[in-house]
Amino acid sequence: MTQPGLLIVFSGPSGVGKSKVLEGAAYQLHNLRKSVSVTTRPPRPGEVDGQDYHFRSTFEFDQMVARGELLEWAQYIDHRYGTPRAWVEERLAQGDDLVLEIDVQGGMRVRALYPNAVMIFMIPPTLAELRRRLQGRNTEPDKVVARRLEAAKGELKIAQKEYCYIICNDRIPEAVEDFVAIIRAEKCRTGRVTLDLNDK
Amino acid sequence: MTQPGLLIVFSGPSGVGKSKVLEGAAYQLHNLRKSVSVTTRPPRPGEVDGQDYHFRSTFEFDQMVARGELLEWAQYIDHRYGTPRAWVEERLAQGDDLVLEIDVQGGMRVRALYPNAVMIFMIPPTLAELRRRLQGRNTEPDKVVARRLEAAKGELKIAQKEYCYIICNDRIPEAVEDFVAIIRAEKCRTGRVTLDLNDK
Repeated sequence: MTQPGLLIVFSGPSGVGKSKVLEGAAYQLHNLRKSVSVTTRPPRPGEVDGQDYHFRSTFEFDQMVARGELLEWAQYIDHRYGTPRAWVEERLAQGDDLVLEIDVQGGMRVRALYPNAVMIFMIPPTLAELRRRLQGRNTEPDKVVARRLEAAKGELKIAQKEYCYIICNDRIPEAVEDFVAIIRAEKCRTGRVTLDLNDK
Repeated sequence: MTQPGLLIVFSGPSGVGKSKVLEGAAYQLHNLRKSVSVTTRPPRPGEVDGQDYHFRSTFEFDQMVARGELLEWAQYIDHRYGTPRAWVEERLAQGDDLVLEIDVQGGMRVRALYPNAVMIFMIPPTLAELRRRLQGRNTEPDKVVARRLEAAKGELKIAQKEYCYIICNDRIPEAVEDFVAIIRAEKCRTGRVTLDLNDK
């Protein structure tokens, strides 16, 4: 019998480095799979449909919502983001550990459905550092950077109450090790370990 | 300001390999310190007073209890074991991560005093394997082995309800990695991470 995989909610301000940390962690965690979200935002240069996101029109997105095909969805700044339900359920049943890289609104909705979800929030060492990283990316106009910073502060406050783990991404290799350790430790949680009390 | 260390309760049947796993983990966790228990049991060949245990007479032990010098103590089979309180408090304040290698009775008492204690229980892959390990040690008569096996079953049942983590010691290197991951993950627990929300 396959042990069901872990459902991992991985949140944190845009620009904090979630994708890089996941990339590093995937080298050590062979069952780790990242959920590809559905979004109505336009692709950034280099982003591939079906790989980075499923890019959909607002009309198509709303149809998916109506058909119950999204596990959660949320409006963030000007666009919508959602998690495809069927894919999550299939992969978990097959024993994969699934990462949902979603905001705290979505995280709360997922945890309501999966109370054992592993909730991880990643923070920059300081908010000043986060601003620097957002500006350095150079893909967003200034007012979007400012709105993302405000959103980050709000998310941090929720995460302090609602998330299990906080990873401080000061240096990527350390943050990767933290992420990997959390997954390994969670597999040792009492409810997840099967004990054989038969004395044979 | 020094971040206080973790208090780790590490329990599991006698013979399951706790000492070896701690030895391996200490190579990776430089702040890890093991508490030296006070005991009334006689030293085994090679054991050093003050290093493996503080060996004391029953009279001396009872005096320590009366003076409140033990954080917890318990009778296990024919002897008493206790944890020196002052040492634990000093080391935690200095930021060391402390391991108390104690039975589940003691573990429950420690958690009552330190609700944030990290509770880890180690199990053998099967009870048959545990018997083999106890017999292989050859330092105990058969009836002691039988009593230890019965005690192990009782402890397992409590651990399934009361402990956070269960490490299955099938192979030592894997069990060491589990232990190290748990400590690293626990340092990322939300309550233990200090967030700087000042935007400077």
